[in-house]
Amino acid sequence: MCQGFKFAGVASGLKKNGQKDLGLIYCERPAHVAGVFTRNQVKAAPVILDMQRITSGACQAVIVNSGNANCCTGEKGMRDAISMGRWAAAGLDISEKQVLVASTGVIGKPLAMDRIQRAVPDLVKALHPAGISHFAEAIMTTDTVPKMVSQKGNLDGVPFTVTGVAKGAGMIRPDMATLLCFVMTDVAAEPALLKEMLVTATKRTLNCITIDGDTSTNDTALLLANGLCGAVVKHDAEKETFQDLLAAVLMSLGKQLVKDGEGATKLVEIVVQRAKSDANARQIADTVAHSNLVKTALFGEDANWGRIIGAVGRAGVPVQTEVIDVYFANERIVQNGMGCGQKTEIEATRVLKRPEFTITIDLKAGKGKASVFTCDFSIDYVKINADYRS
Amino acid sequence: MCQGFKFAGVASGLKKNGQKDLGLIYCERPAHVAGVFTRNQVKAAPVILDMQRITSGACQAVIVNSGNANCCTGEKGMRDAISMGRWAAAGLDISEKQVLVASTGVIGKPLAMDRIQRAVPDLVKALHPAGISHFAEAIMTTDTVPKMVSQKGNLDGVPFTVTGVAKGAGMIRPDMATLLCFVMTDVAAEPALLKEMLVTATKRTLNCITIDGDTSTNDTALLLANGLCGAVVKHDAEKETFQDLLAAVLMSLGKQLVKDGEGATKLVEIVVQRAKSDANARQIADTVAHSNLVKTALFGEDANWGRIIGAVGRAGVPVQTEVIDVYFANERIVQNGMGCGQKTEIEATRVLKRPEFTITIDLKAGKGKASVFTCDFSIDYVKINADYRS
Repeated sequence: MCQGFKFAGVASGLKKNGQKDLGLIYCERPAHVAGVFTRNQVKAAPVILDMQRITSGACQAVIVNSGNANCCTGEKGMRDAISMGRWAAAGLDISEKQVLVASTGVIGKPLAMDRIQRAVPDLVKALHPAGISHFAEAIMTTDTVPKMVSQKGNLDGVPFTVTGVAKGAGMIRPDMATLLCFVMTDVAAEPALLKEMLVTATKRTLNCITIDGDTSTNDTALLLANGLCGAVVKHDAEKETFQDLLAAVLMSLGKQLVKDGEGATKLVEIVVQRAKSDANARQIADTVAHSNLVKTALFGEDANWGRIIGAVGRAGVPVQTEVIDVYFANERIVQNGMGCGQKTEIEATRVLKRPEFTITIDLKAGKGKASVFTCDFSIDYVKINADYRS
Repeated sequence: MCQGFKFAGVASGLKKNGQKDLGLIYCERPAHVAGVFTRNQVKAAPVILDMQRITSGACQAVIVNSGNANCCTGEKGMRDAISMGRWAAAGLDISEKQVLVASTGVIGKPLAMDRIQRAVPDLVKALHPAGISHFAEAIMTTDTVPKMVSQKGNLDGVPFTVTGVAKGAGMIRPDMATLLCFVMTDVAAEPALLKEMLVTATKRTLNCITIDGDTSTNDTALLLANGLCGAVVKHDAEKETFQDLLAAVLMSLGKQLVKDGEGATKLVEIVVQRAKSDANARQIADTVAHSNLVKTALFGEDANWGRIIGAVGRAGVPVQTEVIDVYFANERIVQNGMGCGQKTEIEATRVLKRPEFTITIDLKAGKGKASVFTCDFSIDYVKINADYRS
């Protein structure tokens, strides 16, 4: 784990089942910070608060609750978000302006503030450098497993670490950050540069995953840098090294999210290659990755490539459908827009039984390429989302 | 039923379960015809054939098979579509250029032409003015009920009839005609005018329904007018009268389609009112109508309005979220962007138990309005589509 950070997670009673629902990240000294937030126009109170506070570029703690999104909660919601930050600041003896706040869960219900207030002292007491798994649990909603990763890199002989933790299993699509994601590092970097690197890394990682095509009102991804390792990221060479490790951490978290997608049984990478442009490739990959018919066929382990071709044809990008090839892993199932026959479908069905594989769509039209991670669409997805609030 | 038309439906063996899978519409004398077709770039062979033939403006018969889409089938597919038309023409002793062809079912499999050829004589023999329900059955795929409607109007004292038949339960979204839809009338009208009226009526009916957001490669809607009632539609007054009845027939068919949507248990109209423009209203209505999270909540009969607000916020249209009201039928569940409390949610949950109801989203921003029909998203949708080809 990244030096200089402590983590905690406790059960405050917001979740009915008594599981952990309140988390805290604390940095021994104020860190520089950057963030990306939901592009949904409906923004939860803590998102609005963080977007204001983060302009200072400094942050020493993040308090997060699950079980309630504190969204569509009006002026009371904003006062509640401020109170959460204030109580954490008081417990940690730091300025409340140095505290960011995040919430996730049901929209439109007021937060049970008495429970949070009562739990904050225990939360502060529980802070520990190795407490990240408690924090990861405390931010889960329909997630079935906590999501964490830590990777090490080297900047001019100085070792550095990037540690990430995230939650999210539904309401995810690739036009925004992702639900909640917190990344800690011990390098030093200016807030503006952190922002630039976070945006770049997000574009090619967290923004390339989809579960159900819906977008949350609470999405927040924060990058905190405390400078404790002694390395400074400033020039192009260091930027590249750091950016690569940051992207690797975010990609790992992104894949963990899709793999744990609500009801998901498979992680599938949709690759579109030889499109006229990267943008065209991305548009087609997104359409295939979001198609309910493709996703239900993946769940049914049915090599129904007609649905893939159908989705390509409606993606809004001009394509020559009679030259398209489609591969399941290395198995070519469609050649020049037509099926390759029974034998290859049997092979493709074998691929479909794997927990992870790639579907490649070759348009033979240019040099554009894109990749999007998606999951299958199962009976459990419907069950989970039909019963979510009950 | 509309005079001068005969219908038939038989089982040719294309469907494994022995149900009817081959249908024929025959008009005693050549009718004028207009059509709208799928906007998917991947077009089935019969769609390509019809788009060529319909330019003549004349049609005397339509032959349709279910169980196989004859799509992604290359040059053989086109030859097969032509053969289907030719066999029907020979049996009816008419020119093959007067025959249109439609197919629906699995993509990417060659048609079992021997079965179709063998069945055509019986199909022709079975033609009957009252045979429309057999035809309606013969074009069904995952539909659980046949869809038909017939309505009467009056043009300057002359009674006329519009009769429609349609199929489709999945792969439906509102940016195209719909799966297959055939409308017969006994008025006389020029092909160009028929086209204009069909396009106008489709825009506000069949293009306002959605089941799962995917679009078919085979969508075809045809309007045949044989002139037998003696009334001519030419000037504005007659156009308006005919247009209204045509729209009523298409709306009835559209609602029948959504109601029988794969796995659907509810027909829900999403109304967006007081938007800045009709286009804005439509974009928001479409986003809500397609949201898997909204549709699974409808299935679960959970008045989870946060998901509706979340979908409004991501629709790509600027909105003032803090003034939005949401109604379930007449029950206001959200006022000025916030929930109206437990009591109204209980009332809203009662509304959710109805088989048909309206959700109204009031943006209080202008005079724009739109309405889209959708259905809920159930466990059965996933089951049906995971197992479709097996």
